[in-house]
Amino acid sequence: MRPLNKPIRAYGFDTGGVPGLRNLITDVPGVTVGHCTIDTDRCKTGVTVILPCQDNMFRRKLTAAAFVHNGFGKTAGIPQIDELGTLETPIALTNTLNVGKVHDAIVGWMLDLCRQDGTPIRSVNPVVGETNDGVLSDIALRPVEERHVRAAIESASADFAQGDVGAGKGTVCFGMKGGIGSASRLVTVGEKTYTLGVLVQSNFGATANFTLCGRDLGPGLARRIEAMENDQGSIMMVVATDLPLSSRQLRRVIRRCGVGLSRTGSYMGHGSGDVMLGFTTANRIEPEGDTQTVTILREGLLSAVFTACAQATEEAILNSLACADTVTGYDGKTKRSLTELYLSTL
Amino acid sequence: MRPLNKPIRAYGFDTGGVPGLRNLITDVPGVTVGHCTIDTDRCKTGVTVILPCQDNMFRRKLTAAAFVHNGFGKTAGIPQIDELGTLETPIALTNTLNVGKVHDAIVGWMLDLCRQDGTPIRSVNPVVGETNDGVLSDIALRPVEERHVRAAIESASADFAQGDVGAGKGTVCFGMKGGIGSASRLVTVGEKTYTLGVLVQSNFGATANFTLCGRDLGPGLARRIEAMENDQGSIMMVVATDLPLSSRQLRRVIRRCGVGLSRTGSYMGHGSGDVMLGFTTANRIEPEGDTQTVTILREGLLSAVFTACAQATEEAILNSLACADTVTGYDGKTKRSLTELYLSTL
Amino acid sequence: MRPLNKPIRAYGFDTGGVPGLRNLITDVPGVTVGHCTIDTDRCKTGVTVILPCQDNMFRRKLTAAAFVHNGFGKTAGIPQIDELGTLETPIALTNTLNVGKVHDAIVGWMLDLCRQDGTPIRSVNPVVGETNDGVLSDIALRPVEERHVRAAIESASADFAQGDVGAGKGTVCFGMKGGIGSASRLVTVGEKTYTLGVLVQSNFGATANFTLCGRDLGPGLARRIEAMENDQGSIMMVVATDLPLSSRQLRRVIRRCGVGLSRTGSYMGHGSGDVMLGFTTANRIEPEGDTQTVTILREGLLSAVFTACAQATEEAILNSLACADTVTGYDGKTKRSLTELYLSTL
Amino acid sequence: MRPLNKPIRAYGFDTGGVPGLRNLITDVPGVTVGHCTIDTDRCKTGVTVILPCQDNMFRRKLTAAAFVHNGFGKTAGIPQIDELGTLETPIALTNTLNVGKVHDAIVGWMLDLCRQDGTPIRSVNPVVGETNDGVLSDIALRPVEERHVRAAIESASADFAQGDVGAGKGTVCFGMKGGIGSASRLVTVGEKTYTLGVLVQSNFGATANFTLCGRDLGPGLARRIEAMENDQGSIMMVVATDLPLSSRQLRRVIRRCGVGLSRTGSYMGHGSGDVMLGFTTANRIEPEGDTQTVTILREGLLSAVFTACAQATEEAILNSLACADTVTGYDGKTKRSLTELYLSTL
Repeated sequence: MRPLNKPIRAYGFDTGGVPGLRNLITDVPGVTVGHCTIDTDRCKTGVTVILPCQDNMFRRKLTAAAFVHNGFGKTAGIPQIDELGTLETPIALTNTLNVGKVHDAIVGWMLDLCRQDGTPIRSVNPVVGETNDGVLSDIALRPVEERHVRAAIESASADFAQGDVGAGKGTVCFGMKGGIGSASRLVTVGEKTYTLGVLVQSNFGATANFTLCGRDLGPGLARRIEAMENDQGSIMMVVATDLPLSSRQLRRVIRRCGVGLSRTGSYMGHGSGDVMLGFTTANRIEPEGDTQTVTILREGLLSAVFTACAQATEEAILNSLACADTVTGYDGKTKRSLTELYLSTL
Repeated sequence: MRPLNKPIRAYGFDTGGVPGLRNLITDVPGVTVGHCTIDTDRCKTGVTVILPCQDNMFRRKLTAAAFVHNGFGKTAGIPQIDELGTLETPIALTNTLNVGKVHDAIVGWMLDLCRQDGTPIRSVNPVVGETNDGVLSDIALRPVEERHVRAAIESASADFAQGDVGAGKGTVCFGMKGGIGSASRLVTVGEKTYTLGVLVQSNFGATANFTLCGRDLGPGLARRIEAMENDQGSIMMVVATDLPLSSRQLRRVIRRCGVGLSRTGSYMGHGSGDVMLGFTTANRIEPEGDTQTVTILREGLLSAVFTACAQATEEAILNSLACADTVTGYDGKTKRSLTELYLSTL
Repeated sequence: MRPLNKPIRAYGFDTGGVPGLRNLITDVPGVTVGHCTIDTDRCKTGVTVILPCQDNMFRRKLTAAAFVHNGFGKTAGIPQIDELGTLETPIALTNTLNVGKVHDAIVGWMLDLCRQDGTPIRSVNPVVGETNDGVLSDIALRPVEERHVRAAIESASADFAQGDVGAGKGTVCFGMKGGIGSASRLVTVGEKTYTLGVLVQSNFGATANFTLCGRDLGPGLARRIEAMENDQGSIMMVVATDLPLSSRQLRRVIRRCGVGLSRTGSYMGHGSGDVMLGFTTANRIEPEGDTQTVTILREGLLSAVFTACAQATEEAILNSLACADTVTGYDGKTKRSLTELYLSTL
Repeated sequence: MRPLNKPIRAYGFDTGGVPGLRNLITDVPGVTVGHCTIDTDRCKTGVTVILPCQDNMFRRKLTAAAFVHNGFGKTAGIPQIDELGTLETPIALTNTLNVGKVHDAIVGWMLDLCRQDGTPIRSVNPVVGETNDGVLSDIALRPVEERHVRAAIESASADFAQGDVGAGKGTVCFGMKGGIGSASRLVTVGEKTYTLGVLVQSNFGATANFTLCGRDLGPGLARRIEAMENDQGSIMMVVATDLPLSSRQLRRVIRRCGVGLSRTGSYMGHGSGDVMLGFTTANRIEPEGDTQTVTILREGLLSAVFTACAQATEEAILNSLACADTVTGYDGKTKRSLTELYLSTL
């Protein structure tokens, strides 16, 4: 096993706020993440799955929200989240042209899960996000099969790798090797401390625009590497929390991913699908009863949550870069890591 | 081959306006429709494909719009239509749990098409609509394969069957057999005559609410058949036109499908995903050139288009009922046709 | 005082469902409505105010939602309702060009109210709806002053007049005299009965399209009166309820006003701003505390609420017509009442 | 007359890109800006008006778009811009509680303008933005009268002051004196050069978060001044361009104001209404003709426009700070200028 690259914080960079124990989305109790990486001559791709809870999420759905900042993307499942404010499957990330296959695999897995515990299921809304890893991976091949999705789900754990793994195996960020990154923040309300975590699949950014906690590294990098000239390729941002929020409040929170994204140097270019998805493990929707009570945060307290979301997103993006290794793609193109290009020199 | 049932107009019912030659969505020049029906013991389902043009729609995209009136549904492709205002694939309809498989089949077909004519393609946004035909079809089986989708595309023609065919094989509407229905309207602007066509996949409606051009038939039917008590199950409404419209204008037009839908007796119930998709064959997007000109209708003239859209939608729904035959499902449940229940007695 | 015209139900017309005691929006406990009518040679206009509660709605805001079906209109206050899901002022209706003056009057009234009870207030979001009564009223005159708004608020009561009063004094509906109309429906959930009420300001509709509970009266009327040929002029639809709903759920409910509207003959024409506003008296937002609990209805039970909303809207529109008297406008144009034209002959 | 403070560029700070001649929104041909400042003991407020063209904008409307990033605000006119994609009045900025009065003043001015040139007008959609200047101004007084609005319009010019003038007289930004700021960028497409300009009314930001072109000045400032602890108060961002864009494209462009805003240190806090409005002087809407042609930019070229919009927004915000003088408010509170606090020491 390769020695893991260190996250950005190990180099003294800080986007503000107080991280949770692991500084991962899985600091939110009950949330786990699993990868299945496909690493062949032609394909550098895979699947990353975020399990929002450890019980049947179809039976007791989670309060959720989606926000599309730039809709040049193929994420499945958004209309129903917008309408009902709920998540009823794991969130799977993959590459653009595998969305259909992963969608079907999630359907299959959910049908099995519900059969096992006797939950009636006739319809299900898989949430599948994507970015286009076609720079390093021969994207037309669509290698992701049901078994890869199931392997990712089965491997899900509170500890998980970042960088060039799973759905991040072939992504490119600011012309360097991107991938999966994560971070978390603690939010204290009165005497209670909650957690908000972010996981990103980073595949965006023009090299010259890269900013590392205010350091304008892009122009220098653009002279050293085969620069990405346009801000294209997309980023998926998944937010998890245990804060008591309504779907409307969650939507306000996840929009602030864009603040963190902007600070890394993104202009949310035309070709960059920028999609935010969020859920809370509080306020599960009960399948029975005429009514139920839910707990919501006082609206004025959201500012601290917005800040936490922006800070965790910025750090998650930086972690996706810091934790990735250099990868050479199917046609010999190499995308070098931030560690190799910069962090290792500090 | 069975004798085809007659459309609703054959019985003297009229929702207003002047229909085109075939009174089908294919009255819009260049638009064709194909079905592939899966009719086995367990499965009453299939695929219906609307081809918006006869050339490569990925290379010269069509101006398009989507509107989600009730988002309890799994239609794929909407965020990108919302963002870019374009359609770049055929529109495929199927049942809820086949969306992923049909999505992947459309990806495959588009890759092939673009390979053949040398159009570069790295990303594509399949548009796949669905309703839940689980009353008559064992929906967990997901029988739709790539070959079914290709067969539907290959069979596409200006003449096509309505009723219990393709994606309408297993749908249920107001407790009767629903299916695919279509209608068209002519819209005259100055000296020019344009066409607007609608195709629906009808799978909604509480029996007691059914209204046939103002005739309150629902209560009587509810006493005679196993009534559908809730308005659930969804309807897909696809609008095609050759009117010179922008994406914003198209979105205004397709919202008026809801007017026609309401008049048939729908309350757009909680469980009924009500989704409108529209495109115009005018204003194709050129792949080259810094700028291009497009032609837009004077905004004030849209009222006539709104009316046409509502009228065609109402008639398309009625045609989906009138043209369907009685179908018996996988568990012995039978959904009788409007023809058998009412029209044949006129 | 003129003898009041009878509501539509008095003539045996029924849009379905069970009305509340008064069959008015004020059947929702705590809701009151007041008018101030301006009836001069030049002006047939006024203000209608819906008070959502009898205490300070700024201090304990109400859960609310807005939905714009056709945004050709000038309603103030919608962005903040969309963002925060709350209502913090009365809802005032007036004509198009008085929106600014009524907006300012509501600001003044709220500042006074908050001064009186010591509620801090630095910002407030007046909700002011409008339709264009320029057919009967010399709209450029903008006669509504702060005193008219205050008079409307002060006269607010559970009993209120419908028809050509307040903001409905000068409106025109299907070429006949429109105005203010209201209706309510009871919704039973388990052992509890809730109320949903609707109030409309009707100013829309092409005469030939008028439909009275399925009766196609429009074509006949269009031959007898100076017909309105286009569906233009707008309708405001205000929904009140005591059902335990979230803002997201309320938004789903109020969209179904469009079902009722469609059934009266509207095509939601280009020039007709169709705006829905809704609030619930349940789930008031507490000004203090880190969190609060709210009660939400099980999502699947919303279908009955959707139906109630559509039925009440249809009846409210019909009541706005039935209760209005014939009015002659500033330039001698007369808009005759439905009672005179049709109902009195039954 | 006071010596004008210098814009941020005079100190060597650069947000990227190539500015137009004046580096103001008025670099877009035909666009002018006027202020009317109210500076009394109790009131530090006023009106700023952006005239999008020098002819009657009601007769030949401009293609426009709005985007609400945080809807905690009272901006009037957004629903109609969303629906019709057009601007038909000047854009006026003022403080929160003056929106109604300014709305009415714009109605009056438009009626006069249309009377003068014989343009029929029965309805008009004033666009009025606002931020809350209640820290320095006794906001309940609402001193803005019709004459102030008319004075602002009459004074409109291609040259205009920035800083604590007009609607920016009393605003506070990062705890310092904010106000009106502007900047522009040139965008070259093929052989043509277009201009995009931004004007902001800055009234947001927690002091500790202030970032000046990557310099983390906030924490130091927060120790020296009475810091603003929360990100609240709002910012209006108005974008003008002569690029050939559709309303949909414009909406994509103005969303990128958020990128520039984020880079100054905003987290778009709960209480900060963040509203973007945009128009293009290309593609004016003709009042006659069944159809018209419009020119649209190739979608893929938008990335450069997005970048320009983000860069100009960041610089406009910095200019609003750099150009403002220290102001003492109605209750003796003083908000010091960035020039006094920092720039003058460079």
